[in-house]
Amino acid sequence: MPMVQINVWKGFEQEKIDYLIKNITKAFVEVDVPAQAVEILINEVPKSHWGIGGELCSVKFKDVGPRE
Amino acid sequence: MPMVQINVWKGFEQEKIDYLIKNITKAFVEVDVPAQAVEILINEVPKSHWGIGGELCSVKFKDVGPRE
Amino acid sequence: MPMVQINVWKGFEQEKIDYLIKNITKAFVEVDVPAQAVEILINEVPKSHWGIGGELCSVKFKDVGPRE
Amino acid sequence: MPMVQINVWKGFEQEKIDYLIKNITKAFVEVDVPAQAVEILINEVPKSHWGIGGELCSVKFKDVGPRE
Amino acid sequence: MPMVQINVWKGFEQEKIDYLIKNITKAFVEVDVPAQAVEILINEVPKSHWGIGGELCSVKFKDVGPRE
Amino acid sequence: MPMVQINVWKGFEQEKIDYLIKNITKAFVEVDVPAQAVEILINEVPKSHWGIGGELCSVKFKDVGPRE
Repeated sequence: MPMVQINVWKGFEQEKIDYLIKNITKAFVEVDVPAQAVEILINEVPKSHWGIGGELCSVKFKDVGPRE
Repeated sequence: MPMVQINVWKGFEQEKIDYLIKNITKAFVEVDVPAQAVEILINEVPKSHWGIGGELCSVKFKDVGPRE
Repeated sequence: MPMVQINVWKGFEQEKIDYLIKNITKAFVEVDVPAQAVEILINEVPKSHWGIGGELCSVKFKDVGPRE
Repeated sequence: MPMVQINVWKGFEQEKIDYLIKNITKAFVEVDVPAQAVEILINEVPKSHWGIGGELCSVKFKDVGPRE
Repeated sequence: MPMVQINVWKGFEQEKIDYLIKNITKAFVEVDVPAQAVEILINEVPKSHWGIGGELCSVKFKDVGPRE
Repeated sequence: MPMVQINVWKGFEQEKIDYLIKNITKAFVEVDVPAQAVEILINEVPKSHWGIGGELCSVKFKDVGPRE
């Protein structure tokens, strides 16, 4: 423990993934969780499969972030 | 809130995804949740990675839905 | 398939849960998924365990919805 | 987006939850995700319902963290 | 890795949980995953929050398993 | 019920997936859950998107399992 699951838009850069894994782990360590116990996995979901307010993100945010 | 995560077989048509995102959001609005708060994400899982009753869906349902 | 998982704030009314399960299933049926295949589960998460924009919902939305 | 789901042992202190929500959000902001888009939810799972290496955490870690 | 998440009806007996954690881990070991890497967590969901075919399990299966 | 979700590294062999689906279902049957009710889905996550102890598995375990 803990188990962390993160969903981001498809196309999220690998260097940002590296940063998040390092720094989210650090946040757990700061509340006394041993680093070795922190398991994080990042799932990419296309904007065409993600809805906010009833609209697809591929439409609503078509000029933001990755295109797909 | 709410956060909705949906798993469907890989190959689910985009127009059905659009329909679901619109209508599931509508169902939340009908119980007084503001549309803007509804976040839905749809994950496609190959039939070869989905088991029901101990059998792969790629075998059990080989003539139903997408082939994979 | 499909598998639907929904997270809502703790304190969500049972009658709203009934409504959602009925109407989300109906949305799937309308895109040709057999009703019997639709499995939905609803998980309640306290506002004190839900963050938006770095703030707890129990603070940010302290006058909206359930108190906890 | 993003949607973050965290599972921790039941009994995790509220002040640690506050800290994590604030600092995980901060990590996303540092990779150019707007704070307002970051939604995090924390789920507590009893040690008796969490297994590592085939053993219950309530046994394997009976002297670590919360008792349950 | 792997991370396993299981949802069962609320009221699932602890001894069954023990059995599942032991034997699911064993299944992974049999496909060459080291036992120590297998992390499993079990979440209980009330039958009143679980829908199949548009009906609540608390109604549809009111005489099966736990009452809630 | 039950709903089982499994995350493994991308590149996990199909024959191992078959084995797991069959044998995890069997474990549920042994605790009196009807086979037909057991739904399992397996999600592959690249080692580059999976962190343990703050390090990417693609680095930490670069010589173990699939390369990606």
